[in-house]
Amino acid sequence: MAENKAIILLGDGMGDRPVPELEGKTSLEAQETPALDQIAAEGVCGMLNPISPGIRVGSDTAHMAILGYDPFAFYTGRGPFEAKGVGIDVQPGDLAFRCNFATVENNVVVDRRAGRIKEGTDKLADAIQQATAGGIDGVEVIFLPSVEHRAALVLRGEGLDHRVTDVDPHHEGVEVPLCEPLPEAADDPNAIRSAQVVNEFVRTAHEALEASPVNEKRRAEGLLLANAALPRGVGTAPHLEPFSEKYGLNGALIVEVDLVKGLGKYLEMAVIDVPGATGGADTDEMAIARAICEAWADYDFILCNIKAPDLGGHDSDVEAKLEAIAKVDRAAAYLLDNLDWDHTVITIAADHCTPITVGDHSGDSIPIAFYGIGVRPDDVSSYGERPCAKGDLGCIRGADIINLLTNYTGTQEKFGA
Amino acid sequence: MAENKAIILLGDGMGDRPVPELEGKTSLEAQETPALDQIAAEGVCGMLNPISPGIRVGSDTAHMAILGYDPFAFYTGRGPFEAKGVGIDVQPGDLAFRCNFATVENNVVVDRRAGRIKEGTDKLADAIQQATAGGIDGVEVIFLPSVEHRAALVLRGEGLDHRVTDVDPHHEGVEVPLCEPLPEAADDPNAIRSAQVVNEFVRTAHEALEASPVNEKRRAEGLLLANAALPRGVGTAPHLEPFSEKYGLNGALIVEVDLVKGLGKYLEMAVIDVPGATGGADTDEMAIARAICEAWADYDFILCNIKAPDLGGHDSDVEAKLEAIAKVDRAAAYLLDNLDWDHTVITIAADHCTPITVGDHSGDSIPIAFYGIGVRPDDVSSYGERPCAKGDLGCIRGADIINLLTNYTGTQEKFGA
Repeated sequence: MAENKAIILLGDGMGDRPVPELEGKTSLEAQETPALDQIAAEGVCGMLNPISPGIRVGSDTAHMAILGYDPFAFYTGRGPFEAKGVGIDVQPGDLAFRCNFATVENNVVVDRRAGRIKEGTDKLADAIQQATAGGIDGVEVIFLPSVEHRAALVLRGEGLDHRVTDVDPHHEGVEVPLCEPLPEAADDPNAIRSAQVVNEFVRTAHEALEASPVNEKRRAEGLLLANAALPRGVGTAPHLEPFSEKYGLNGALIVEVDLVKGLGKYLEMAVIDVPGATGGADTDEMAIARAICEAWADYDFILCNIKAPDLGGHDSDVEAKLEAIAKVDRAAAYLLDNLDWDHTVITIAADHCTPITVGDHSGDSIPIAFYGIGVRPDDVSSYGERPCAKGDLGCIRGADIINLLTNYTGTQEKFGA
Repeated sequence: MAENKAIILLGDGMGDRPVPELEGKTSLEAQETPALDQIAAEGVCGMLNPISPGIRVGSDTAHMAILGYDPFAFYTGRGPFEAKGVGIDVQPGDLAFRCNFATVENNVVVDRRAGRIKEGTDKLADAIQQATAGGIDGVEVIFLPSVEHRAALVLRGEGLDHRVTDVDPHHEGVEVPLCEPLPEAADDPNAIRSAQVVNEFVRTAHEALEASPVNEKRRAEGLLLANAALPRGVGTAPHLEPFSEKYGLNGALIVEVDLVKGLGKYLEMAVIDVPGATGGADTDEMAIARAICEAWADYDFILCNIKAPDLGGHDSDVEAKLEAIAKVDRAAAYLLDNLDWDHTVITIAADHCTPITVGDHSGDSIPIAFYGIGVRPDDVSSYGERPCAKGDLGCIRGADIINLLTNYTGTQEKFGA
């Protein structure tokens, strides 16, 4: 156990652009954030580009970058992290997909979520698993359900290639498309074969689901059938060095996003579930803050992400985003009051901006502040985009964060003599 | 066609160092630039290093970097871009050279530009092309004239290597040197063979030119003969992904530098010629600005370069550089007045600095400002080196520019989920 501890507290999508309703201030600049401001005032500030200036990142790629794993080298799609999050023991080289249970009639997608099916998906998954138990064309099939309509599919075998299209058409009222090689891999035998295996999986799964007693019951009850499993978000599972081996730190994640939980499991980090952490606007930020303080005793490094600000951004809902930022601030206040700051460094940031005016992730830079042991404070006095841009840290990248933290905590080995 | 458009307006070589005649201000800091200042004041500013801090770039490598193509990966010399600009269908792997028609007597270079020959170079090029029609040692020879004494040479075949010396000695009164492998490739059979092919080309071209009726006429008129073609600036033509494929943007160039036009053709971008855009101090900047506004309707992305400031820098002519900067400012003012800024983002910069005190390109950082849709303005209020260095953007690189622009326009695909 390290003597000093490092914490990353992220308000998901918290960064912003000027909001007209806030007189051109960003959400962070407009909301009162006494705890975040204290961290900025007593710490050092700068701007964060998770990958490089202007690049629009997802939550998965941003967290990879922030944990020091280069997404350009390792990321081909969300599938491996989804599958890991669901509990599949994903292996390097596996082809992994997010899947939805869906309702299909005459090969047309009627409901992409099978009426948001809640019960019986374990039995449906079993039916698929049994129907594909012998593999498909020599490829092993692993299929596990997650919550509601969600599931994950892993294909394991030689000669697979992730450069194939989604089967989930992302829209309703359209035909289920065949999985096909992407244009750049149109002649690649592995991509062609991978697409064929996916298509055979979809066909076999459809037959198995149609015959399932779960759907018999749904039919009788007038519910939408869960008679298709539609793969998307394919990626080849990379080999990622476990976090503890890469950094010599005993790390934990307290996050509300399944995709990021999957990444944490992938990196063999502890993934701490917090009762009350809903991932929604109603999340219990104080329970999350208490969980950080508890984990502080057991771990050298904790990354926490509070999802709510991102939701306000996606919905272009100013009030929701402001209130979510207030939640992040209250969690930060609890940490300020309850951690031993002679032995702790924290950084406050976001994984990306989700501007109110955009309603989606943007590639804008994100304010970041480091506070605690080892930090050389600058004269920035509040946490926000324009204030932090004046900070002494300058512009940093996601990959710099752990190096800065382990520099402050003194847990980084010297490179050189 | 994208809903929002992106424009890059470059004042070639516009960046500067302190100028003693301007009381230590740079040219940009000293000249009144109300339009550029408005862009800085209402936009976000920073400093640009086209490749990385301190690297002295050419116009070709700077534009490559600014368009997001790594010159270290793809650039071996100007030849391929010159040849493309002249109209040769350069292929990946071709060895390409800039050539001058020159006057040579007893193997000594008397005039590197053959008295700035203006007429008959097409016939001279034909003579060379006929004399080399059978190729040289199995290598295909393509030779085309450009304006005045300029021409381009392409050698196409197996086993060619660009690591060879120039034949053009860059000075007059000296012997025409033999083409030789560079020291690091002295033992490389391909470099040795490439040099031999070049020497044979120079010998054959000399014979063909001596015998040309064009030179017979020049001799009769007492003009300097154009009896040699001297290759230089060799490069191996790289494969560069077309701009539209790399970015999904329909792009156009409005530039006054042939080398950059060649790069644009190489990237399969539209290259728009503007009557009145002379590439000189007398260029019609308002015609250029009108051309940008016309192109705005048809293209998603426009890069414009006004050459004049660079000329003032090269000549260490303070007044000329100040007046050229005023031209860039007038063009910017026209754009501010005539474009739809709810659907446009612009960045103002230079491809490099050409300081008055240096008279050549330097590796100093360049002020850059982004203005328009999506931009989070900072508190910089004028465009210039020292003001922009205080901007919120920090220091960026050429490769970041298109990522920032497509972030603002919303035309960049998200990387991740």
